[in-house]
Amino acid sequence: MVTDLDIARAARLLPIQEIAARAGIPEAALEPYGRHKAKVGLEFATARDGAAPRGALVLVTGISPTAAGEGKTTTTIGLGDALNSLGTRAMIALREPSLGPCFGVKGGATGGGRAQVAPMEEINLHFTGDFHAITSANNLLAAMLDNHLYWGNELGLDARRVSWRRAIDMNDRALRQVNAALGGVPNGFPREDGFDITVASEVMAVFCLSKNLEELQQRLGRIIVGQTRDGRNVTARDLKADGAMAALLRDALAPNLVQTLEGSPALVHGGPFANIAHGCNSVIATRLALQLADVVVTEAGFGADLGAEKFLDIKCRSAGLAPSACVVVATVRALKMHGGVAKSALGAEDVAAVTRGAANLRRHVQNMQKFGLPVVVALNRFTSDTAAEIAAVQAAVRPLGVEAILCTHWSDGAAGAADLARAVQALIAGGTASFEPLYNDHMSLQGKIETVAREIYHAASVSVPPPVAARLRRFEEQGFGHVPVCIAKTQYSFSADPTLMGAPEGHVLPLREVRLSAGAGFVVAICGEIMTMPGLPRRPAAESIGLDAEGRIEGLF
Amino acid sequence: MVTDLDIARAARLLPIQEIAARAGIPEAALEPYGRHKAKVGLEFATARDGAAPRGALVLVTGISPTAAGEGKTTTTIGLGDALNSLGTRAMIALREPSLGPCFGVKGGATGGGRAQVAPMEEINLHFTGDFHAITSANNLLAAMLDNHLYWGNELGLDARRVSWRRAIDMNDRALRQVNAALGGVPNGFPREDGFDITVASEVMAVFCLSKNLEELQQRLGRIIVGQTRDGRNVTARDLKADGAMAALLRDALAPNLVQTLEGSPALVHGGPFANIAHGCNSVIATRLALQLADVVVTEAGFGADLGAEKFLDIKCRSAGLAPSACVVVATVRALKMHGGVAKSALGAEDVAAVTRGAANLRRHVQNMQKFGLPVVVALNRFTSDTAAEIAAVQAAVRPLGVEAILCTHWSDGAAGAADLARAVQALIAGGTASFEPLYNDHMSLQGKIETVAREIYHAASVSVPPPVAARLRRFEEQGFGHVPVCIAKTQYSFSADPTLMGAPEGHVLPLREVRLSAGAGFVVAICGEIMTMPGLPRRPAAESIGLDAEGRIEGLF
Repeated sequence: MVTDLDIARAARLLPIQEIAARAGIPEAALEPYGRHKAKVGLEFATARDGAAPRGALVLVTGISPTAAGEGKTTTTIGLGDALNSLGTRAMIALREPSLGPCFGVKGGATGGGRAQVAPMEEINLHFTGDFHAITSANNLLAAMLDNHLYWGNELGLDARRVSWRRAIDMNDRALRQVNAALGGVPNGFPREDGFDITVASEVMAVFCLSKNLEELQQRLGRIIVGQTRDGRNVTARDLKADGAMAALLRDALAPNLVQTLEGSPALVHGGPFANIAHGCNSVIATRLALQLADVVVTEAGFGADLGAEKFLDIKCRSAGLAPSACVVVATVRALKMHGGVAKSALGAEDVAAVTRGAANLRRHVQNMQKFGLPVVVALNRFTSDTAAEIAAVQAAVRPLGVEAILCTHWSDGAAGAADLARAVQALIAGGTASFEPLYNDHMSLQGKIETVAREIYHAASVSVPPPVAARLRRFEEQGFGHVPVCIAKTQYSFSADPTLMGAPEGHVLPLREVRLSAGAGFVVAICGEIMTMPGLPRRPAAESIGLDAEGRIEGLF
Repeated sequence: MVTDLDIARAARLLPIQEIAARAGIPEAALEPYGRHKAKVGLEFATARDGAAPRGALVLVTGISPTAAGEGKTTTTIGLGDALNSLGTRAMIALREPSLGPCFGVKGGATGGGRAQVAPMEEINLHFTGDFHAITSANNLLAAMLDNHLYWGNELGLDARRVSWRRAIDMNDRALRQVNAALGGVPNGFPREDGFDITVASEVMAVFCLSKNLEELQQRLGRIIVGQTRDGRNVTARDLKADGAMAALLRDALAPNLVQTLEGSPALVHGGPFANIAHGCNSVIATRLALQLADVVVTEAGFGADLGAEKFLDIKCRSAGLAPSACVVVATVRALKMHGGVAKSALGAEDVAAVTRGAANLRRHVQNMQKFGLPVVVALNRFTSDTAAEIAAVQAAVRPLGVEAILCTHWSDGAAGAADLARAVQALIAGGTASFEPLYNDHMSLQGKIETVAREIYHAASVSVPPPVAARLRRFEEQGFGHVPVCIAKTQYSFSADPTLMGAPEGHVLPLREVRLSAGAGFVVAICGEIMTMPGLPRRPAAESIGLDAEGRIEGLF
């Protein structure tokens, strides 16, 4: 079997300077990291951070994910390659992979088949060290916090009310909950603590939402690490940690340039979770790409109810971005699962199931239309898909004024996404986009949560326990009422119940807990279980990763 | 006041390609990281890893450190610059700085004044990411270990006998001792755990002792993570972690090339602690430098009793290296402290105290002579030093056949170390070095510890608790009797009591605990307290680190 790694290795990559030249980045602005990766100097990258974007922004999002796989990253890359092959000057903006899933079960995040960014081993492992810098900044704040407690606690921080957790870029369930500072006087005051995976850290969200270095430091300073006994917030700035954190992050904040296997320039930068954070690459990378390219193709995590909603209501709102078009990725196989077919039975034709499952796709499409975006569906073709099944998908979205375009970029590269690229070009040229966030800044925090639940999730209502409602009012009293909400719920359903596939209606969204991310500038609304530290599976991918006789990495996928 | 950072910033650095050319490294072998840092490709760096070294190796070590400071790194850099200025083709091989001390109290590790390696902010912060890679490899092994316990513990590992700890490159006392995997079934089996600073990890020692990638993976596989209930060792290979660890470390294993402020090529690579590890830069970097340069100047941590002894008995033995000369660094001020003067009284002339304190210097010099090395003393001059005090130092070492050379490279750069360089050239040209490790491989482990205690520390005896003696015999039965010993004790005294300065005699070395580092290939013998995770001071340096209006890092020193 030819693996993604085999395809990636067989590709002849161009020197990164050549990719930069294609993208309009002068060599003087380039900080090479090896031969095929570079950082784009922050001065160049943020030189026009006040200017209006030049290019058109295209968001790639997806249906509610299933075990069958949809291929959002692959489509983002394939679409970028196809646009370039048609003569449109396109750039791709993606998130960086996390080490955790690489060693766990999911594998890397560099696309697949002939639609990959490269060098895949390096991007999937340490890349240019951004996540390590983010981990360090997160943990420096934690160390300074415990050090403050140790040396007399001048700020009066209540050790029981410390909310700041440590971070590690690893799937390590043993670190979810720990008792720290044990062992007596020299080691500090024992307290409950825990580690999140780095992509779930507020530092990651801050990193991805900052337009420049100055804003980064301001946001870092606003991070709330806990409260005093009388409920006063204690911030990173109170601990004098914001300067050193910004110093740790300075070089990382410069966006990373790489190339696709077909030579398209791609910025791969930042990688927040799409549950307790906003799930898309850095604002700096997206804005830079929009200054350089005519079309920028970017991706948001999970399904459109989570990733795209946050991309639009959090990132675009904060960064002043307005997408020109939206691509919703689906597969016949995944729609069959939404229509009730088990994974083991996906091989057999089942047009009725496709039609049932297409309710999920239709709702995501309609949701994106609610933001004022023109939509096209990218249908990633599998060899087992039948003509009748494909026709069923196309028929399902046609009444919404939306085309479903067959894509084969996984096996065919740019040529396989040329139809999709032409459809996207037409949407952009049509100029029908009139982006608006779903809710305005002035709505109450609870109102914002209810609006997303009603409009996007089609919930009948939100159940808000009285202490949670009080906490939301408290945030408003403290001056944080204007921020957007970042809803954390399962990605597998529009509801909070992962087994409710398709397009459930009338469910109740159970709001369990709210957290203020004052640095990132949003309130996290937790509905149901959320995972801020994954575990490894019984047979972690790490067991199969190693070096071959030539010192090349094998087993990454 | 002009700070080290001001001097470093004012320096005009050359493109790293030019430094590489000076060093004889072809551009094709260079992986640039920005404009002034590069990795030397592993293939080139290890191409001749079986060949005999071409150049002469010079070890820079020091007296027992005091609060007055001695300047080993600065002298290593100044000597390298001076050799180059005299027309000798010299390279410098140093350890990489750890983030922990940068944010704590000690500051960076890039030298000082006009004897620095640059770019200092980048080297002191993330550099090329090597320590992050080492941290990740360490913690992947830990995560796979707890994951193994979680999924049924096929290997029968006894959770009470797990010796593998997690690592973080941070001074964080709260992580010294933790209870992990709390919170119930989904989080695993609760057990006692803790974090060491990355420089104290066995992965760091393995990284620094491996001659090539293949040896790295073999050594990683041999790391013992704990025992089964019946005392059988469980290794990283048993957990199938060695391949993924090696993949994480592959790029890091290529040595880093930077330059001094005067344009000398310097390899800065690896950075193990000099207590529970061996305290010197990577074997790969040293061996590469010895293929390229006529003289390689390298440094070992702490005083010569710790750093140099380990450099010689562990690194040189393992890597087949033989130094040609040894520089012992001292200052009048530090010798006065060894002579009983308080730090606050160092400004006043006190020739008698210098003479008393010089006993410490003399012993270190004699110890180095016991390894068959010709020695020169580098006396780092302070403006407060008087002619009589300097003469006292020179008189103290003259009977040993050793010169004490005044050095002012801190303020004068290469010119300030020219006399030292000429003395080193003379020692090399003299060809009197006949390096031999202190003990041979076949001696018992306890015999090796006793030999170092007697010959180097001048201890009367070693107190060995019976269970510790039994453990040493156990290691021998398991086939680890041939390895050297790595003694961890205070760096402030030849004895295990940090207050016994000067040259104490007849003390008893209290051996408390022994640990087998089967991957690194030594037995750690712990005498007294050792610190594998420092804490931050009341006012950490981090509080003063930040970005100025131009986005430059300030407050690093």
